[in-house]
Amino acid sequence: MKSYLQMSKEELMECKADLEKAFEDARGKGLKLDMSRGKPAAMQLDLVMPIMDVLNSKSDLTSRDGMDCRNYGGPDGLPEAKELMAAMIDVKPEQVVVCGNSSLNIMYDTVSRSVTHGVCGSTPWCKLPEVKFLCPVPGYDRHFKVTENFGIKMINIPMTPQGPDMDLVEKYVNNDPAVKRIWCVAKYANPQGYNYSDETVRRFAALTPAAEDFRIYWDNAYCVHHLYTDPERQDHILNILDECEKAGHPDLAFEFCSTSKVSFPGAGVAAVASSANNLEWIKKSMHIQTIGHDKINQLRHVRYYKDIDGLLQQMQLHGDMMRSKFEAVEKRLEEALEGLEIGTWTKPNGGYFISFDALPGCAKAIVAKCKEAGVTLTSAGATYPYGIDPEDKNIRFAPSYPTPREMSDATEIFVLCAKLVSVDKLLEGK
Amino acid sequence: MKSYLQMSKEELMECKADLEKAFEDARGKGLKLDMSRGKPAAMQLDLVMPIMDVLNSKSDLTSRDGMDCRNYGGPDGLPEAKELMAAMIDVKPEQVVVCGNSSLNIMYDTVSRSVTHGVCGSTPWCKLPEVKFLCPVPGYDRHFKVTENFGIKMINIPMTPQGPDMDLVEKYVNNDPAVKRIWCVAKYANPQGYNYSDETVRRFAALTPAAEDFRIYWDNAYCVHHLYTDPERQDHILNILDECEKAGHPDLAFEFCSTSKVSFPGAGVAAVASSANNLEWIKKSMHIQTIGHDKINQLRHVRYYKDIDGLLQQMQLHGDMMRSKFEAVEKRLEEALEGLEIGTWTKPNGGYFISFDALPGCAKAIVAKCKEAGVTLTSAGATYPYGIDPEDKNIRFAPSYPTPREMSDATEIFVLCAKLVSVDKLLEGK
Repeated sequence: MKSYLQMSKEELMECKADLEKAFEDARGKGLKLDMSRGKPAAMQLDLVMPIMDVLNSKSDLTSRDGMDCRNYGGPDGLPEAKELMAAMIDVKPEQVVVCGNSSLNIMYDTVSRSVTHGVCGSTPWCKLPEVKFLCPVPGYDRHFKVTENFGIKMINIPMTPQGPDMDLVEKYVNNDPAVKRIWCVAKYANPQGYNYSDETVRRFAALTPAAEDFRIYWDNAYCVHHLYTDPERQDHILNILDECEKAGHPDLAFEFCSTSKVSFPGAGVAAVASSANNLEWIKKSMHIQTIGHDKINQLRHVRYYKDIDGLLQQMQLHGDMMRSKFEAVEKRLEEALEGLEIGTWTKPNGGYFISFDALPGCAKAIVAKCKEAGVTLTSAGATYPYGIDPEDKNIRFAPSYPTPREMSDATEIFVLCAKLVSVDKLLEGK
Repeated sequence: MKSYLQMSKEELMECKADLEKAFEDARGKGLKLDMSRGKPAAMQLDLVMPIMDVLNSKSDLTSRDGMDCRNYGGPDGLPEAKELMAAMIDVKPEQVVVCGNSSLNIMYDTVSRSVTHGVCGSTPWCKLPEVKFLCPVPGYDRHFKVTENFGIKMINIPMTPQGPDMDLVEKYVNNDPAVKRIWCVAKYANPQGYNYSDETVRRFAALTPAAEDFRIYWDNAYCVHHLYTDPERQDHILNILDECEKAGHPDLAFEFCSTSKVSFPGAGVAAVASSANNLEWIKKSMHIQTIGHDKINQLRHVRYYKDIDGLLQQMQLHGDMMRSKFEAVEKRLEEALEGLEIGTWTKPNGGYFISFDALPGCAKAIVAKCKEAGVTLTSAGATYPYGIDPEDKNIRFAPSYPTPREMSDATEIFVLCAKLVSVDKLLEGK
């Protein structure tokens, strides 16, 4: 197909007439499709339903170390739950504290604790004139919301296929003592599905922060969320806790994970992993915050998956379901946009999202146009701090929830809108 | 029995010799009894086991309003869970937000949120030179720990059988803008089992605080925890939210409750109730903190108890189990201490504790002496802020966990130690 960038005004006008007609047809269909949120489809959750049977009124609800899981206690999590969660992110069980159902909640609390108490003895952030977080962009909107909620200044760090721009990260972290954190989704990053290269992870571990309380937030949300069964198409990243230890900075990172997209988002298990020092700091206030998280649900997960192999087997089935949706999107995008030079998109091997970059200044208009035709996308800008995409070009696809057919239909509308908005944009310059 | 206070030095010496012999005999038995923590006994939890069967892999896990409880969403709780929790504390469902498994966690977060964000628009506490909480004493150690954790100054308010000394409460709240909260366990108070009188509740509702962000923390932990089935022996308190509204102060109170001592402490459901304004303030940050609490566990509770009547029926059975333990303690105390004038104790109609006041200066020594003979009690002082009982006289009994026989044995040791320490104390003055 001929690149839109090479077209004359007349060619673009002709294109536009065709596209407008197609758009009116599409709008007339009264579609109602939603690819805005990264939530598992009901079919995936159906697969997990046997977890509801592993515990019943005849079950022994005693943990391996003899705790009655029904009663108070065990604020750090059951030993067997630590083992399962540790295996999921390839760390040691003693590096893990298992909590409630939400890793976002753990992250929020970890930030909140730093604001009120400081980190491992450092000044509480509420006593500082300014606190800054580095935010690789595009990134996860809820990380940014947590940060904004505490009035912390966010600094955009451009993402590359190998991870955040590390020159910039080093410049900020190693020189500015107000920079306290960076949000990382190192594996199958939200939204591009990129993976941090070994060099990137090692450069993270080698940081020499200006702030004594600088920490890396390593959100390993998609640790076992491969789309392909072929090992060649399964991505792996270095273990950040190991690398930090090797680099002589054992306290540099907090890692977060959950079974939200493994078992049930509404009733999973979440965990945080870090060094002994950092865990001690977390536990100090966590033991005041609660007498214990839901231990029966932890036990339910352990009895159901048995071990990491059981969990990975189920994730293969999830991957199979997800793959068909991702491929439906990718196929449509390729067929319709290849060669037009009006957008690029990622083809991840895992995770929950595809990231699309339109021509600068087009993202908001495309999302609005899709909405007109009955297709809901994540708001343009949501993948950036404060909801502001400086180039207004990034759009996030969340293919997980609809069916493959719906995804295909939605993408058909999307490409139509992308073309239409791009043509308009290009005509502006003619 | 002759009062120890009336005894001569010689009589006391004689007493002491007998008591010391009895104590040595008791110590020789090598007992190991624990009446330190207010946790349900395994027998109580066994009663609740059918809750493990109400949901299984064939269950419809859809809430009344059509939400798939397995998936993300519903951060305020399921409508039917709101209804059940509301009925437990006799408020309206729309006054309730249902959360995770721990009301302590909700309380901690409510304090933390005030520190970082202020309350409904007021100055965040971290920006204030000093924040003070009123603490009716003796009270619940974990309330005090949460407060201390945030560096908030605690002020003791003496408890009476009708509730806290309201003259003092009014003096502080209505005059000192640094006083931001009071911790109340209004029903079957921890540890005395006292209930706030109607007058007390109304005086609370009528407070005219110097601080615009003053709130009452109303921990209704024992809302349905009666020991007796006879309605005459079931205590009731006025609804604080209603009274605040009637008094024209709808935003004055936060109420907390949970099923920790109804279903399972390790896997229950907790909730907070308040005015629309206050809930709005909570939800504003809670919706950033989590995408939703465990909705399947909320659904499990609703399907199991069906309604408040089902829940109350089960609580009667719990009450039967608890009553025999409370009565075992009370009988032993009466038999051994009646008339001696060395201690007074409460005879609650509900809750989880009995409060014992020894002669001033004796509590620590009695608890230590009990420990020597193999009986663990809650640390003396634990019922006071900073662990400091100014008169060193209060001791908390937690009869729930051991068997009635164990409670009886433990109390036998206790009275022996109480006598011995009291005799020593009285001899000091001779």
